[in-house]
Amino acid sequence: MSSLHQEPHFDNRPIGVFDSGIGGITVLKELVKAFPLESFIYLGDTARLPYGSKSAETVRQYSLQNIKFLISRSVKAIVVACNTASTQVPETEYMGLPLYNVIDPGAELACKKTINQKIGVLGTRATVKAGTYTQRIKKHLPMADVFSQACPLFVPLAEEALYEDPVTNLIAYRYLQNLKAEDIDTVILGCTHYPLLKTSIRKVFGNYIHLIDSGEAIAELLTHDFYVERLKKSKTDENSVRICLTDASEHFENLSNELLCSVMTKSLHFETVSII
Amino acid sequence: MSSLHQEPHFDNRPIGVFDSGIGGITVLKELVKAFPLESFIYLGDTARLPYGSKSAETVRQYSLQNIKFLISRSVKAIVVACNTASTQVPETEYMGLPLYNVIDPGAELACKKTINQKIGVLGTRATVKAGTYTQRIKKHLPMADVFSQACPLFVPLAEEALYEDPVTNLIAYRYLQNLKAEDIDTVILGCTHYPLLKTSIRKVFGNYIHLIDSGEAIAELLTHDFYVERLKKSKTDENSVRICLTDASEHFENLSNELLCSVMTKSLHFETVSII
Repeated sequence: MSSLHQEPHFDNRPIGVFDSGIGGITVLKELVKAFPLESFIYLGDTARLPYGSKSAETVRQYSLQNIKFLISRSVKAIVVACNTASTQVPETEYMGLPLYNVIDPGAELACKKTINQKIGVLGTRATVKAGTYTQRIKKHLPMADVFSQACPLFVPLAEEALYEDPVTNLIAYRYLQNLKAEDIDTVILGCTHYPLLKTSIRKVFGNYIHLIDSGEAIAELLTHDFYVERLKKSKTDENSVRICLTDASEHFENLSNELLCSVMTKSLHFETVSII
Repeated sequence: MSSLHQEPHFDNRPIGVFDSGIGGITVLKELVKAFPLESFIYLGDTARLPYGSKSAETVRQYSLQNIKFLISRSVKAIVVACNTASTQVPETEYMGLPLYNVIDPGAELACKKTINQKIGVLGTRATVKAGTYTQRIKKHLPMADVFSQACPLFVPLAEEALYEDPVTNLIAYRYLQNLKAEDIDTVILGCTHYPLLKTSIRKVFGNYIHLIDSGEAIAELLTHDFYVERLKKSKTDENSVRICLTDASEHFENLSNELLCSVMTKSLHFETVSII
């Protein structure tokens, strides 16, 4: 529906969200929970996942193709629900549309929560190499100590749904023991897959650590932008959640149905799309 | 160098080999070991790896793009060094060039080795779903019992070089215990990554099982084809091994240098290429 036919303070177009795979569904879940009257269109680039092991140039190229696809579907805003892609998409606007990455709100929330200014950042190899979280945290808290750790097996473990599993616990312990020794009080889950492994991560750090979830952080930012009308609310009874995949995947459909069932009142629509 | 300028019984063009990632390097290693005077050009589609979790149509499309790239580099034959891709490329010839998949020689070798006709097949989710190994084994041994098992975490464990690791042992035990209970005497390592995890796999099955490695099986087949002159030998002092990657990856370069160092007398050449 074109915004031309809408009331001036409302905009019924969907919010576009993309990730390489299942991880971004943790962001979509927080957004659907926070904004149940909005429509969403989610693009999972399953034909080329994962992004976390790929080079900066390739991730940038894939991200721009994803953004163009979402724009072709008439979205009113775009959320880059992938931390690796967010390191390569610094823009806050694209062709006049608000563009949100998951790094800035996560870094900002971590800076609000930490008391001892010792912050851990977990991410893919690409995210850690880009160093974007460290830069953003230092902008807010120049004296903060930031400890980054690449956790490359977390994505396949989450894609395999081994959310609470002895294997995941063992790998979490291995990746995180050095960070634990640094006495950090806040950990950024710097990959949208990682909230799925919260239980194993918390087993290593204990209950008193702040775990920063990108989905929650970005939902806070969007709440603010709806309030100041950078984003206009939807006003329709026909809101929907549509999931587009660049490669058909029954495994993905099952997982996302399972992850979203607690926040969805309607059924999800799935579609396989070609974006290049 | 064009074959027009060559002696009639020789052909100095390289043999093309492709896989999505590091797995095919286990095949390349066996080929370099068996044919030290040949040149090879290896294409790793690192921009789109892995293939094992993707749909049949997508894997077929990627494979054809890889084949066309290798043909543009004037190869004399093509080896599909990826079992998932091999399920989607049944051809034995492409534009007049011999085309080899890794499934047929592996299935045939397993049928030669088994005594009790109980054969296990380990593969990615896509390879197991395609059922190609079972069909090929049944063609040779109609009474054979074939037990297939998808091992989706083996690829990321191999890509992370956790070749002999307690985590790999634990996951191997979980995937393979049901197969072990079936009293199989032969196991096809139905993904070119899996030979890297042989130690963990053998820990589950014991020392008396036959593990069928696609690289060894295809080297046997090529030996035969050189003998009957379906393939012509190279006759040059300038043989080389070139590795082309669709996405630059230092991690990949380090791993392949490490895996190939025992069979290489010259240094590897790396190149980043665009294939679409």
